[in-house]
Amino acid sequence: MEAAISTLVTQFKTFAGKDGSGSTLSRDEFHSLVTSQLPNYVKNASDPGEIDRLMGSLDQNNDGELTFTEFWALVGKLACKQAGFSH
Amino acid sequence: MEAAISTLVTQFKTFAGKDGSGSTLSRDEFHSLVTSQLPNYVKNASDPGEIDRLMGSLDQNNDGELTFTEFWALVGKLACKQAGFSH
Repeated sequence: MEAAISTLVTQFKTFAGKDGSGSTLSRDEFHSLVTSQLPNYVKNASDPGEIDRLMGSLDQNNDGELTFTEFWALVGKLACKQAGFSH
Repeated sequence: MEAAISTLVTQFKTFAGKDGSGSTLSRDEFHSLVTSQLPNYVKNASDPGEIDRLMGSLDQNNDGELTFTEFWALVGKLACKQAGFSH
């Protein structure tokens, strides 16, 4: 499990580090992460409007950036769906 | 990322399926998961008392079982610490 957790952290940092703050995902960073890393888990991942709606639902403090904790909430929902558990 | 998420889901199901409900972790299942899967991420993972305290902090509805969502909160905190992000 630890290797899988580390992969998720490393990938988050890779995309978060592209522009601005290295510890949050900007809109563009989130778009490239979802389209390249979560193409099967996020329905309509190729639709920018869908990704904006997704980001809006996660960005709890509405600062246009996703913290790791906000991002982790998305991954949890996707994992729950993938596992067939009620969320 | 999807493979890493799938690993976490599969491992949760493997341990959750050992006794009782296959979709929640009992105390014993949680103990064996932490000691075998998270030995480096959970300090004092070999101390049963520590694991009980950890489970108590996660078991939001106090039913002695951890749902996937409750478990995911732990993984998120561990990932945050591992990433060096404030939680």
